[in-house]
Amino acid sequence: MQTLSVDLNSDMGEGFGVYRAGDDEALLDVVTSANVACGFHAGDPEIMARTFEMAKERRVNVGAHPGFPDLWGFGRRAMPYTPAEIERLVAYQVGAAQALSAYAGNPITFVKAHGALGNLTEPREDIATAVCRAVKAVDPTLICVSFSGGTLLRVAQDMGLRTCAEIFADRGYTEEGRLVPRGQPDAMVHDPQAAAERALRMVRSGAVESTSGRQVELPIETICIHGDGPEAVATARLVRRTLEDAGIAIASFVPPGSARL
Amino acid sequence: MQTLSVDLNSDMGEGFGVYRAGDDEALLDVVTSANVACGFHAGDPEIMARTFEMAKERRVNVGAHPGFPDLWGFGRRAMPYTPAEIERLVAYQVGAAQALSAYAGNPITFVKAHGALGNLTEPREDIATAVCRAVKAVDPTLICVSFSGGTLLRVAQDMGLRTCAEIFADRGYTEEGRLVPRGQPDAMVHDPQAAAERALRMVRSGAVESTSGRQVELPIETICIHGDGPEAVATARLVRRTLEDAGIAIASFVPPGSARL
Amino acid sequence: MQTLSVDLNSDMGEGFGVYRAGDDEALLDVVTSANVACGFHAGDPEIMARTFEMAKERRVNVGAHPGFPDLWGFGRRAMPYTPAEIERLVAYQVGAAQALSAYAGNPITFVKAHGALGNLTEPREDIATAVCRAVKAVDPTLICVSFSGGTLLRVAQDMGLRTCAEIFADRGYTEEGRLVPRGQPDAMVHDPQAAAERALRMVRSGAVESTSGRQVELPIETICIHGDGPEAVATARLVRRTLEDAGIAIASFVPPGSARL
Amino acid sequence: MQTLSVDLNSDMGEGFGVYRAGDDEALLDVVTSANVACGFHAGDPEIMARTFEMAKERRVNVGAHPGFPDLWGFGRRAMPYTPAEIERLVAYQVGAAQALSAYAGNPITFVKAHGALGNLTEPREDIATAVCRAVKAVDPTLICVSFSGGTLLRVAQDMGLRTCAEIFADRGYTEEGRLVPRGQPDAMVHDPQAAAERALRMVRSGAVESTSGRQVELPIETICIHGDGPEAVATARLVRRTLEDAGIAIASFVPPGSARL
Repeated sequence: MQTLSVDLNSDMGEGFGVYRAGDDEALLDVVTSANVACGFHAGDPEIMARTFEMAKERRVNVGAHPGFPDLWGFGRRAMPYTPAEIERLVAYQVGAAQALSAYAGNPITFVKAHGALGNLTEPREDIATAVCRAVKAVDPTLICVSFSGGTLLRVAQDMGLRTCAEIFADRGYTEEGRLVPRGQPDAMVHDPQAAAERALRMVRSGAVESTSGRQVELPIETICIHGDGPEAVATARLVRRTLEDAGIAIASFVPPGSARL
Repeated sequence: MQTLSVDLNSDMGEGFGVYRAGDDEALLDVVTSANVACGFHAGDPEIMARTFEMAKERRVNVGAHPGFPDLWGFGRRAMPYTPAEIERLVAYQVGAAQALSAYAGNPITFVKAHGALGNLTEPREDIATAVCRAVKAVDPTLICVSFSGGTLLRVAQDMGLRTCAEIFADRGYTEEGRLVPRGQPDAMVHDPQAAAERALRMVRSGAVESTSGRQVELPIETICIHGDGPEAVATARLVRRTLEDAGIAIASFVPPGSARL
Repeated sequence: MQTLSVDLNSDMGEGFGVYRAGDDEALLDVVTSANVACGFHAGDPEIMARTFEMAKERRVNVGAHPGFPDLWGFGRRAMPYTPAEIERLVAYQVGAAQALSAYAGNPITFVKAHGALGNLTEPREDIATAVCRAVKAVDPTLICVSFSGGTLLRVAQDMGLRTCAEIFADRGYTEEGRLVPRGQPDAMVHDPQAAAERALRMVRSGAVESTSGRQVELPIETICIHGDGPEAVATARLVRRTLEDAGIAIASFVPPGSARL
Repeated sequence: MQTLSVDLNSDMGEGFGVYRAGDDEALLDVVTSANVACGFHAGDPEIMARTFEMAKERRVNVGAHPGFPDLWGFGRRAMPYTPAEIERLVAYQVGAAQALSAYAGNPITFVKAHGALGNLTEPREDIATAVCRAVKAVDPTLICVSFSGGTLLRVAQDMGLRTCAEIFADRGYTEEGRLVPRGQPDAMVHDPQAAAERALRMVRSGAVESTSGRQVELPIETICIHGDGPEAVATARLVRRTLEDAGIAIASFVPPGSARL
C-alpha cells in the first residue's frame, strides 16, 4: 500500500527594501516548497538571501520565481517582451537565485514563473519555450513547476526537463482542466474550508474539479498556496491540516538537500 | 627559456537597452579577458548574453564585473552599502553572469569589481572581504582579479581563493605601488605610445613604475585596458602590438573553455 | 501676401547618466522646438536641466516628451498600463519637466508623447484622452503636439486644449493620411534629399503625400526631425535649408519666452 | 488673548506599487499637513495622486517630500550625490508633486526633504542650499519645512523663502537644541504618553527640552508625527488629543486651498 503524498508551494520573499508582502516566516512552517522572487517583480538580494536561509532552517525546498522586470506592477502586467528577451531575463534571474541560494547553502531545485509571465506560458507556447530554454541552458537539472496539463510542462518534457505538475486549491477549473480566468464567476474559491476540502478531494481522486462538478484527471504533484491576503497563513494551515488528517503525506517533490551545489 | 606572458582585460557590455558604451566588438579582438557588466551599474540580460557570445566566438576569457546598483551613476558613486549588503549584491550579480555565460556556452572564470565598488576594496578591507565571501559562496573556483599588491588579493588568498594581479598601463603609481588617485597630477598617462611602452617595461621588469621613476616590484598577470573614450580601441591595439613585437605572449590567465560548466 | 511658416521639432535629452543618444547640441541649432525626455523612457534630472538650458541659449521652444516607464526599452514597448495609470504617469512627467524648465528659465510650452505611448494614442482614444486629461489638469495652457489629423488632436480640441499638428518628412503616409506602420514597405523615406524635398512639397501644398502619390490635405504646423542615427544632424540641416531656400520661414509654433512661468 | 496653534505633519504616500507603508487614511484624520513622497525613495504616480485626493477630501495641507533616488533603501542611505545633482533631483520631484497635486485639485504648499537627504541639510550647508535653490527656482511661494533652528531654515530665510520650523515629539534634543542622533541613548522617546505630554510642554513653552532637562527656546510651527510602526496612528491621535485638550489649536501652517494653482 502506497501513501499518497503532495507538495505545498507558496511564493516567498516578495518584499522589496523596507516593504514586505506576506508572512514568509509563518508560511515556511506550512509549505514544503518556496518560490523565491528574484528581484525583477519583487525581492532584492537581502530578502532573497534571508528567505533562502529561513527555508534552509526549516528544510523547505526552494526554487527561483522569475517574473517580468516590473517592480511597480508586481509582475502582474503582461509586458510585451519578446520570447528571446524573456529567455534571457529568466536566465538572469535563475542565475541570481542560484547564487543567493548557494550562498545560503540551500541551492534551488526548481523554477516557477511568476504572475503575468507564468500566465502567458499557457496560451503562448513561444513564451513557455523561452522559459524552458532558459532553464535548460542555465541548469538542466532544475525542475519546471507549472500548471498541470498545461503548455509549459509539455514543452519542458519535450526538451527532456524534469517537471512538477501544479494545481490550485482555491481556483475554479474549466471542463478542460484549465483555470477559470480571474474576474470570471467561479474563478476563485473564497472559503478556506471549501478550498481545503477541495484540495483533499482532488489529491485523492487525482483529478481537478471543474466548475460544473466534473472530474478532470490531471497529475497533482504540488498545490499552490497563496501567500498574500490577510487569511493566507490561516488558509495554508487549514489546507495542510486537512490533508494530513486524511493521511496524505505533505512532502517536497524533491528531497531537501538533493540539489547539486 | 620561458616566454613572458600577460593577459589584457577590458570592461565590456557596459551599455543598457539602446545605449552603448565602447566598441566591444573591436576590443574583443584585442583583449584576452572581458569583464562583463552584470546589470547593476550597466548591462542588461540581452547585452550580457550577446557579450558572452561574442567573447566565445573569439575565444576570449570572460568574468563577472559586478558594481553598485547605480545605473544613473554608472557605478562610479561610492554608495553607502554595508559590507553585508555588498556581499549579497555581488553574489546576485555573479550568479546572473554565471547563468548568462552558461547560456552562451562560455562560463565565467573570474570576478572583478567595477568602479567605485572596486576602488573601495582597497582602503576598506571589510568591503574587500565582502566581495571575496560572495565569490567563495557562489563558486570558489572563480578567480578574483584586482589591484596587484592590494587589499582584495591578500584577503582572497587568505580565504584560499585563486587570484589574478592587475596593473594599469595608463595610470600613475605611488612609491608604494598604489594607484595615484584620479584628479591628482600624474594620475593618468594620456599618450597611447607612452602607455604602451610603459606596459612593456613593466611586464619585462615585473615592476610598476612610480611617478618618481622608481621600480616597485609587483606581480603582473593582467593589464587593464580602458574601453571607453574615443581612443580606446586604438590604444588597446597599440599596447597589444607593442607587447607582441617585443616577444611577450598575450594570453588569458586561464585557458578558454577551462571553466566548469 | 503671407509667408509660409513651419516649426521643426526633434526629440532631445534622450540620454541617461553617462549615456547619450543623438547630438543634441548640433540639433538645437537646426530645430525650433525640442521635445525633452522626462526620465521615464530616457533622460535624468541632470540631462533635462542641461537640455532646457542649451535650448534657452538658442531660443528654442521646449516641451515635455513623456513616455512609458521603460528605460530598458527606450519607451518603444507598448506597455499595458491602464488609461488611468497613463494619465498619472504623464502628469508626473509633465510636472517634472515644468520644474526643470522653470529651473532653467525656459518653461515648457507643449507636450508630445513619446514612442509607444505616442503611437497608442492613435488607435486607442482612451489613451489619447488620458494624455490630454493629464495635460489639462497640470496646465491647460500647454499645447498638445501630435499626428496631424489624428485621434489625440481631435480629443484635445474637444477638451478645449491648444494643439499643434505634426507631420514627418521621412515617413510614408497611407491614402487616409495616416503613417504607414514601421516594418511595412514604404514606411520610411531613407534618402535625406528625398525627405527634404518631400517636406517642402508637403508644406507648400498643405497636404501629406500618400505612398500612391495622392495628396491628402492635413494641417502642417510642425515637422518631426529624427535625432538619432548617424545621419540625423545632416538630414535635419538639409530639411531646414531646403525649406528656407524655398522661402519657408522656420519658426516655433509659439514665440520663445511666451510661456507663463 | 491669543490661542496657541500648531501644525501636525506626517510622511504619507510612502508605498510603492502593491506595497504600503503606514495607514495614510487614518493618519490623514489626525494631521494637518501631509508630506507626500515623490517617487524617488517611495511613492509612484498612482499613490501620489490618491494621497493628494485623500488629503483634499479631509482638507489637509500637502507638500512635496523629495528624497534620494533609492527605492531599495527608502531614502535612508546618505547617497553621495553632489549639491548640483541634488538641486536638480529635488526640482524634478517638486515638479512631479506639483503636477499630481494640481491634478487632484489640491496643490502643494511646501517642501520637506526626506530621510537621509533631510538629515544631510543640517551638517551640509551646501546641500541645504541645493534644496532651497531648487524650491526657489521651481516655485518661490513654496514653504520650506525643516528642523527648527537648523541650517536649512537659515539658508531659506537668507534666500527670501518662506519657512516653517519643525520639532519632534518623540526625539531627544541636545543642549544646543539639535536632535540627538539615532542610535544614541535618549535619541527616541518611546512612550506615546510621554511624547504627547512632551509635545504639549514644548508648544506651551516655545522651547524644546534637552536630554538634561534644559529648555532651549526655538520656534515651533509644526510637529512631526511618525507614520510608520504599529503604534503610529495611536500615538498620533494621542498627541493631537493631548494638545487639543489643553486648548492648543491644531491647524495647518497655511490655510488649505491658499496655494496658487
